[in-house]
Amino acid sequence: MATMKDVAKLAEVGVGTVSRVINNSTGVKPATRERVEAAIRELGYVRDEYARGLKTNSSQTVALILPTIWNPFFAEFAYFVEQALYQRQYKLLLCNSSGDYEKEYQYIQMVTQNKVDGIIGITYSAIDQYVSSKLPFVSIDRYFTEDISYVTSENFAGGKLAAQQLLDHGARHLAYISGYSKYKNETTRRRDGFNSLLMQRGIEADEIFVPEPVTGLPKLVDGLLKRRPDLDGIFCVNDLMLLQVKEILNQRQISVPDDIQMIGYDGFNLTDDQPLGVSTIKQPVAEMAQAAVKILFQKIKNPDSPSEIEVLPVSYREGWTTKAK
Amino acid sequence: MATMKDVAKLAEVGVGTVSRVINNSTGVKPATRERVEAAIRELGYVRDEYARGLKTNSSQTVALILPTIWNPFFAEFAYFVEQALYQRQYKLLLCNSSGDYEKEYQYIQMVTQNKVDGIIGITYSAIDQYVSSKLPFVSIDRYFTEDISYVTSENFAGGKLAAQQLLDHGARHLAYISGYSKYKNETTRRRDGFNSLLMQRGIEADEIFVPEPVTGLPKLVDGLLKRRPDLDGIFCVNDLMLLQVKEILNQRQISVPDDIQMIGYDGFNLTDDQPLGVSTIKQPVAEMAQAAVKILFQKIKNPDSPSEIEVLPVSYREGWTTKAK
Repeated sequence: MATMKDVAKLAEVGVGTVSRVINNSTGVKPATRERVEAAIRELGYVRDEYARGLKTNSSQTVALILPTIWNPFFAEFAYFVEQALYQRQYKLLLCNSSGDYEKEYQYIQMVTQNKVDGIIGITYSAIDQYVSSKLPFVSIDRYFTEDISYVTSENFAGGKLAAQQLLDHGARHLAYISGYSKYKNETTRRRDGFNSLLMQRGIEADEIFVPEPVTGLPKLVDGLLKRRPDLDGIFCVNDLMLLQVKEILNQRQISVPDDIQMIGYDGFNLTDDQPLGVSTIKQPVAEMAQAAVKILFQKIKNPDSPSEIEVLPVSYREGWTTKAK
Repeated sequence: MATMKDVAKLAEVGVGTVSRVINNSTGVKPATRERVEAAIRELGYVRDEYARGLKTNSSQTVALILPTIWNPFFAEFAYFVEQALYQRQYKLLLCNSSGDYEKEYQYIQMVTQNKVDGIIGITYSAIDQYVSSKLPFVSIDRYFTEDISYVTSENFAGGKLAAQQLLDHGARHLAYISGYSKYKNETTRRRDGFNSLLMQRGIEADEIFVPEPVTGLPKLVDGLLKRRPDLDGIFCVNDLMLLQVKEILNQRQISVPDDIQMIGYDGFNLTDDQPLGVSTIKQPVAEMAQAAVKILFQKIKNPDSPSEIEVLPVSYREGWTTKAK
């Protein structure tokens, strides 16, 4: 079997140059690169990744743990994580955990087995018992301990912003609608921010705030409408929840935004060039993904590096679920 | 470092039982499993995946190549592929290729390097020069050669079904809207099926049929509306295209479905419990993913196994973009 030395000899370059070509490093002239690639093809040189793994202890792989990729917000996040990893010549392992911590734990084991270099996790499970400061792990939207790095957006400010925007659009009788996970995460701060601003203004909001998975939403909405017949503004914990509630309202001949204005959260796009179109508090998804990858690589390079927290700003994006001001 | 033998000794079982526990195989009593797991924890036994890879030549990993995960249809497909792989104790590597065949080629190289056991690919690129019958590769929606396995749905029948449904809903002046890839794939057969049924009925449909990426869609729609002021039914190549066209129509005060009825293709859901809601020709996404994984594993187990073609049925799903019959 051909070795890297054989390739170097045939291409009339040093072994270091062959390595740079193989690793897609910079600083190789195009003509030289072509010569090396021709030699690789001619000799049928294949780099054995397992032998390489034994040598460098790196799998060039990062795992992304999500509740499910079948959710446009998580799909958008995964897109940007994969892009940032690719720029570092890393590959992405995808795990849809559905909140199953045993499945998540398998990926943590893969780190100790050198099959994965690190993990980025959006986890709503009892995984905390396995997450330690030694693990190259970055959490999204969930605080574990001060030793564990995490990236989130300004959820409290986002909740306040939603309240402010509903008021600015003329809504006065407001409600918040959300499920909550038994594993406390940052999303509950959207509710805190929303209520905080309204309290300052002397407005008491109603709410639907029930354990996940949310079941029987139509009945809960009916109850809310009965309690608050004057309801004219709703803030939902995310855009998908907004779509569900809007559908229920439409079935009851209540028009959005004419009768009730709505603001969601996330601001995901269906694809890179197609927004969902609802009024929403937009998270900086690309920036969150890039920050998570950056922090993870610091930890991969140096396992003793301190944990980092990055909280990114949100913004309001106007859509068709609020009235023109 | 603890070995598998050490674990077997402490748990008072054979090495084979330890192996079955580690590999999550069946046929281990719960009590025995617990004893082995306790021994693994006590000894801090870690299975070295690289050493294992050298032995078995398997990475227990499959790559999924998609144009982009940032598209609800591909996210749904990826969800089911990951699920089917997990049932076989395999992991999923995710590649957003954006049609870049060099990026796709990297994953093919990983197969020869034993870093990936096989590939499932939705590819619109010049990758065909690298795909051979020896490669454990299953193509989705694209025919390479008779040697390459592929899975698709009944695109021709789907196109016919869309035409039939528009006619059944009372539309008479029809058009097809689609971009096309320069790498011929199965989606063009939706157009063939649509036109075929209409020709049988003596109806000539108009169309917007332009190279991808589709630019200037609003002008193209304006042109269509000018050519066909009586237009009352549109079939779009996929649901995302339908949403784009509907938005353009709405901006021109044309109502869907009152003025123009629309049928899309794919029938993706936003999440496992939230349909998009448009009228559409639904692909059996879960079944396609499961078929692709099944065919791929036959090829992984036996590289000389013949190629397979699986064509799955589609169905019509009524939504709010057509009128009640």
